[in-house]
Amino acid sequence: MINGVTAKIQIDRLLLQALQEDITAEDVTTNAIVKGNPKGQAQLICKEGGILAGITVFQRVFELLDEDAVVETVYQDGDVIEKGSVIATVTGNVKAILSGERVALNYLQRMCGIATLTRDMAEQLKNTKTKLLDTRKTTPNMRIFEKYAVTVGGGCNHRYNLSDGVLIKDNHICAAGGVKEAIMMAKKYAPFVRKIEVEAETLEMVEEAVAAGADIIMLDNMDDDTMAQAIKMIGGRAQTECSGNVSKERLKSIGALGVDFVSCGALTHSAPVLDLSLKNLKVL
Amino acid sequence: MINGVTAKIQIDRLLLQALQEDITAEDVTTNAIVKGNPKGQAQLICKEGGILAGITVFQRVFELLDEDAVVETVYQDGDVIEKGSVIATVTGNVKAILSGERVALNYLQRMCGIATLTRDMAEQLKNTKTKLLDTRKTTPNMRIFEKYAVTVGGGCNHRYNLSDGVLIKDNHICAAGGVKEAIMMAKKYAPFVRKIEVEAETLEMVEEAVAAGADIIMLDNMDDDTMAQAIKMIGGRAQTECSGNVSKERLKSIGALGVDFVSCGALTHSAPVLDLSLKNLKVL
Amino acid sequence: MINGVTAKIQIDRLLLQALQEDITAEDVTTNAIVKGNPKGQAQLICKEGGILAGITVFQRVFELLDEDAVVETVYQDGDVIEKGSVIATVTGNVKAILSGERVALNYLQRMCGIATLTRDMAEQLKNTKTKLLDTRKTTPNMRIFEKYAVTVGGGCNHRYNLSDGVLIKDNHICAAGGVKEAIMMAKKYAPFVRKIEVEAETLEMVEEAVAAGADIIMLDNMDDDTMAQAIKMIGGRAQTECSGNVSKERLKSIGALGVDFVSCGALTHSAPVLDLSLKNLKVL
Amino acid sequence: MINGVTAKIQIDRLLLQALQEDITAEDVTTNAIVKGNPKGQAQLICKEGGILAGITVFQRVFELLDEDAVVETVYQDGDVIEKGSVIATVTGNVKAILSGERVALNYLQRMCGIATLTRDMAEQLKNTKTKLLDTRKTTPNMRIFEKYAVTVGGGCNHRYNLSDGVLIKDNHICAAGGVKEAIMMAKKYAPFVRKIEVEAETLEMVEEAVAAGADIIMLDNMDDDTMAQAIKMIGGRAQTECSGNVSKERLKSIGALGVDFVSCGALTHSAPVLDLSLKNLKVL
Amino acid sequence: MINGVTAKIQIDRLLLQALQEDITAEDVTTNAIVKGNPKGQAQLICKEGGILAGITVFQRVFELLDEDAVVETVYQDGDVIEKGSVIATVTGNVKAILSGERVALNYLQRMCGIATLTRDMAEQLKNTKTKLLDTRKTTPNMRIFEKYAVTVGGGCNHRYNLSDGVLIKDNHICAAGGVKEAIMMAKKYAPFVRKIEVEAETLEMVEEAVAAGADIIMLDNMDDDTMAQAIKMIGGRAQTECSGNVSKERLKSIGALGVDFVSCGALTHSAPVLDLSLKNLKVL
Amino acid sequence: MINGVTAKIQIDRLLLQALQEDITAEDVTTNAIVKGNPKGQAQLICKEGGILAGITVFQRVFELLDEDAVVETVYQDGDVIEKGSVIATVTGNVKAILSGERVALNYLQRMCGIATLTRDMAEQLKNTKTKLLDTRKTTPNMRIFEKYAVTVGGGCNHRYNLSDGVLIKDNHICAAGGVKEAIMMAKKYAPFVRKIEVEAETLEMVEEAVAAGADIIMLDNMDDDTMAQAIKMIGGRAQTECSGNVSKERLKSIGALGVDFVSCGALTHSAPVLDLSLKNLKVL
Repeated sequence: MINGVTAKIQIDRLLLQALQEDITAEDVTTNAIVKGNPKGQAQLICKEGGILAGITVFQRVFELLDEDAVVETVYQDGDVIEKGSVIATVTGNVKAILSGERVALNYLQRMCGIATLTRDMAEQLKNTKTKLLDTRKTTPNMRIFEKYAVTVGGGCNHRYNLSDGVLIKDNHICAAGGVKEAIMMAKKYAPFVRKIEVEAETLEMVEEAVAAGADIIMLDNMDDDTMAQAIKMIGGRAQTECSGNVSKERLKSIGALGVDFVSCGALTHSAPVLDLSLKNLKVL
Repeated sequence: MINGVTAKIQIDRLLLQALQEDITAEDVTTNAIVKGNPKGQAQLICKEGGILAGITVFQRVFELLDEDAVVETVYQDGDVIEKGSVIATVTGNVKAILSGERVALNYLQRMCGIATLTRDMAEQLKNTKTKLLDTRKTTPNMRIFEKYAVTVGGGCNHRYNLSDGVLIKDNHICAAGGVKEAIMMAKKYAPFVRKIEVEAETLEMVEEAVAAGADIIMLDNMDDDTMAQAIKMIGGRAQTECSGNVSKERLKSIGALGVDFVSCGALTHSAPVLDLSLKNLKVL
Repeated sequence: MINGVTAKIQIDRLLLQALQEDITAEDVTTNAIVKGNPKGQAQLICKEGGILAGITVFQRVFELLDEDAVVETVYQDGDVIEKGSVIATVTGNVKAILSGERVALNYLQRMCGIATLTRDMAEQLKNTKTKLLDTRKTTPNMRIFEKYAVTVGGGCNHRYNLSDGVLIKDNHICAAGGVKEAIMMAKKYAPFVRKIEVEAETLEMVEEAVAAGADIIMLDNMDDDTMAQAIKMIGGRAQTECSGNVSKERLKSIGALGVDFVSCGALTHSAPVLDLSLKNLKVL
Repeated sequence: MINGVTAKIQIDRLLLQALQEDITAEDVTTNAIVKGNPKGQAQLICKEGGILAGITVFQRVFELLDEDAVVETVYQDGDVIEKGSVIATVTGNVKAILSGERVALNYLQRMCGIATLTRDMAEQLKNTKTKLLDTRKTTPNMRIFEKYAVTVGGGCNHRYNLSDGVLIKDNHICAAGGVKEAIMMAKKYAPFVRKIEVEAETLEMVEEAVAAGADIIMLDNMDDDTMAQAIKMIGGRAQTECSGNVSKERLKSIGALGVDFVSCGALTHSAPVLDLSLKNLKVL
Repeated sequence: MINGVTAKIQIDRLLLQALQEDITAEDVTTNAIVKGNPKGQAQLICKEGGILAGITVFQRVFELLDEDAVVETVYQDGDVIEKGSVIATVTGNVKAILSGERVALNYLQRMCGIATLTRDMAEQLKNTKTKLLDTRKTTPNMRIFEKYAVTVGGGCNHRYNLSDGVLIKDNHICAAGGVKEAIMMAKKYAPFVRKIEVEAETLEMVEEAVAAGADIIMLDNMDDDTMAQAIKMIGGRAQTECSGNVSKERLKSIGALGVDFVSCGALTHSAPVLDLSLKNLKVL
Repeated sequence: MINGVTAKIQIDRLLLQALQEDITAEDVTTNAIVKGNPKGQAQLICKEGGILAGITVFQRVFELLDEDAVVETVYQDGDVIEKGSVIATVTGNVKAILSGERVALNYLQRMCGIATLTRDMAEQLKNTKTKLLDTRKTTPNMRIFEKYAVTVGGGCNHRYNLSDGVLIKDNHICAAGGVKEAIMMAKKYAPFVRKIEVEAETLEMVEEAVAAGADIIMLDNMDDDTMAQAIKMIGGRAQTECSGNVSKERLKSIGALGVDFVSCGALTHSAPVLDLSLKNLKVL
């Protein structure tokens, strides 16, 4: 999701906007103290163990300020990084390093935080068929970074946004007048490349959804027993997704039920950042 | 920070961008199911107690999609909201409600999460002179919302960005060749309306900073004893800010030291969201 | 795809940009001749029979220039319009009518042109199970208008863009090393809500695609006989799409084959516009 | 109109926007199948004879995604290209080639289509003094590309937009109260570098326009006889432009009348695209 | 040039950008002091006599911040305003008035300054046939406002920008290899609606330009005698424009020469602003 | 304020916008006359003595059009430049030079004009403690260039915008109900890194402001005697700024009063441009 192509098309403008948020007119402190355009080097230090995610985003922030800036590292996204280690060195214009530091870290720390939490939760599902999904509960204007970080941590992406997936929720069912009616309308309207997913809160709704030909059934806020019944009732006629009240603790029992997917908003909305720091700036 | 003026100047464009992130071409599900432009009403439900922050942002999302949309509520930012209560009702075009729901909640939940954490931490400083500050460790392109949420929770804002405050950090001191040199350079360069703040990690640096006329001294990563000495040594000649390793647990002892400010990045970078939901949509 | 919500999120900015393309500094002619801000009325005349598509886009152009402008019409998108009839009246600020006329017509004529061609081709498939699809061969920065016009004409939308559908083409198969390998990689990488479509040029590729679990198989540039064999071989195990060399003349025979879908780039890339005109301006 | 300067000022932002339209989050298929950043090469194949127009635009799309991408060709805009020939090779990052292909072709095919139609029509005017003009009936947000393609095909550009030319049409004449009044008002208001053009539907209007000092007279929807009279009546006192009902078939007779210009909206609003394809991708 | 249509298409975005320049995050002072959203009224005071220009721009700034804001005035653009008079009252949200004041005045004062200087210079040409022109020496991103202010002051606009007028200058003549060559190339390339203007520094160049069919000849940096000779030599075969070293003092003698136009960069690049102030805010 | 970092973050987009203002579709004259992409060189000539400011902005305009363009000069911002001297040579694509010339000069001339006026006025304050300040009376969307030019001329910057400084003016005092009340509210609301400045028109207001703890007191529109009394009364308890009716002639007497700062809007709102020209283009 994050590579040279998306950098040019989507990511650069977001990074630039974040830099504009942080620098209205100039970096007063840096410009007061750094005269001319010396080259320098600083270290990216890991102050808390976790999963690296977003190193090319971190790098791109500096490149946008100094096209000759270089980030050297032996790590890549998905690697475990350990407290106290030097993750990377940034070499470039000293002003670019100082002025870009905070924005670069704000992206990287958040992405690592998400990947770290995702890895932690995904491991509860090891040796099961169940895959961990993210949701649309992302930070506004951060979705591409956050959904990517989920994949780095070993999670899978649900739909990207409202335009590229059909998910019929309680309010839609209300408006349509029933599960079956909603599914019929969606099948009629949506491009044929879309799978139709519907949220079901009861076994009756599950049955109705399967009968109406839903591709995916979201078992919403069900306890483990009800979910087990639902999965059995569906019997492979649709994919299944568990949603609601998903905590790390509960993941093991969810995995044991044989549900295809479990989605968890906390991956993107409540992951604490990973503690990283840019230190030891040397003028070269 | 968030009012009718900033809505027009800064906030509308960020909300619109977030809506564009979530709706590339259309909300397929809603458009499949809702025919015509019926009016409807839904409820904003509090599923977890906390502090309300961002209700006008929540409202503005719907207004941007339907200028006649109305959010009615008896609460205002800063109020305690309780689990299970109905916080507000949203009335307007059903498509606007369904298509704006997630973006509106993504803003509101995050802002409430920050305000709730801030309130919780600020209360540890009650009956002390010490004020709780935020940092620039905000989510990219979310700063105006996050810094506002800190004030709603009872915290104070540090500088907004690199352009409107001088903060001389370790790397700047290195580049300048010393604390005194850095302060002199900043005083010479920065607009006279800026206060000069400098980060000090040792008592020697504190002394040097005071002597050089710093307006604010950040006591960085000091233990309580060292900080007490520093504050005594400064003796009111500069304002003091405690920074580094600030946890809720440690706030009481920090407050007891008589430091003017204590800053905490976690307020904005690691607050979990508050659980809120839009439910019970009725077509009117 | 085009309604009040997408107007605010995506369409307004495109219309405004088109107006900026047409008016750099001012409409010199109109400003020379119209003094003050008189109100006026003009008629939208149909000079060639076809299908109406985009009347709300036409209207929105005038609203963007004069928020009190009104377009009155008894027609709606999808209606047949006949040569010589008055389709609508535009009432509003005379300067807004004159300055917006060309942009409004440029959108409307193109959208009607596409809907008219689509209707014409879709009718060749009447009484068959085969549905007519568009492609990504749209005019740059016009996709939302053009894909909408296809649906108005009775066609169906294929994927909207590269992000919301998987379509493995010859070049991808090359890069992957084979049909099966490509499908496996796509299944592993793509969000689970995506169906996997693969292009097959031979019966061998069709067989391999079905075996590998493709959801949709595009029968690319096959003659009718080969296509018939392919459809029989697939036997309902995947959806089928006919693509390549699709002309109006050939559609009947394609429909007779029982293929699920037939896609046609010409719907959006080569439809001539429908001849419409804004006439009879009266100052009120 | 399209060169290094306009690329930077106007074209890059349009191409980037078109790429954003086609890639919201990522090219799922390509990213699933292409691992790392291999270099590759593909061929631009001509599947239908015509006139090449827009090869630097085609190239620029790939450069925007991969600054090292190279398009090699022996052709330049205006050349005749023949069915079956290889027009160019694209060498660069495989992901950039696959992800940029459709947008690059959507521009190129449309521009070639316009140039091909223009060439075809302009040839009907060979050996006459009459020049073929385009109009403002261009696709929204495509004008710079389409007007350029007209010149490549051997046509001439009329005014670019409402700001850079004065053209008094029927509705303006109505509002002004007469041909003479309208011309007087335009002469008074418009910058002196503008020529004043007026639309005339009858010989009376032609006479009035000449008398009032119009620089250019558009002979609108006249039959050949009337037009011949009009041209004779004008006798070189103004330039003449034939407009309305201009088909390829009628161009020869129009050319014979000795009118200075003939304008044709179909050049830009109804030219079918030229069939081109990117094929034979090899990983290098 | 400035009316309801251009407001929507071009002006609003420039005003909004100027407001963003002045308000990054919030108007700290106003938000500190004004609680809630009281309505208020302030007076626009004229502190220096001159010509009013831009009152609708002034008004639009407040409307962008508060759609109910109203500016009431008995003056209109072009009126003489006198020192000490109240030009207008602004009524609206107090925060909008205080936060928009400076941007509104920055536009208005500059536009009035230009109109005042233009009026002053244009009066030197009274009773002559010579008209006063502006140039492209405008402040970046202010052209539409500055060129409009020139017309308010009684000047005329030269071309708006490089795209809508042909002006062959010394450097172009060099590149073309001569005056005649340059004119031929321009006639061949430029859309036929453009007049061809050429800069001539000597009588020889004037003769060559006339012979080659230039529509307008700029007499550049000539003394009055040479200019008189040039005008005589041209004898009405082309329009004439005097340029270079144009001061208020010299205008009378220039006017006496019978040149058609005289252009003056100082109108837009060096007009001092008119002293205006917003005073006497009352909370209503 | 203007360096490699701010170029990327803020300046490039403003320069590009200015270029778009000047080139809608193409530079018709240049494209008519210059065929292919020859390289050329031109000279930047000083036609009026002054202070150089903005040479990197001048250079950046050409780089944006031709990344290989080079501006060579022995001067740097702040240097005195003399009439008749060659300030720099521009080497690059001839089209880029011709098309960028006007925008590059429009920036440079204005910046030099401001620096020259500032230097002139600042010299009146030599040998005093008083520093010359700018204001927010800048040209819309030109602030970063104009404030930078002030520093080049030897002036100091006041606050950058409404978000980064507190300045309580007459209207705020009205709204707050008094000087003291306003200061209290500002201290409570504003981030602690802001100094509080208040405007005082009388000695009573000065006293009240000092007592309430204002950091800076603006002595507004006072005569020299009153100002002297005010400064004495303040006695170093706050910084002092003289504002209103500041002319070059009066600066000497103001400097003698011992005020800390004197601010002057004319530096940015009424400085005439410096006469510079790009000449002697040679094709290389």
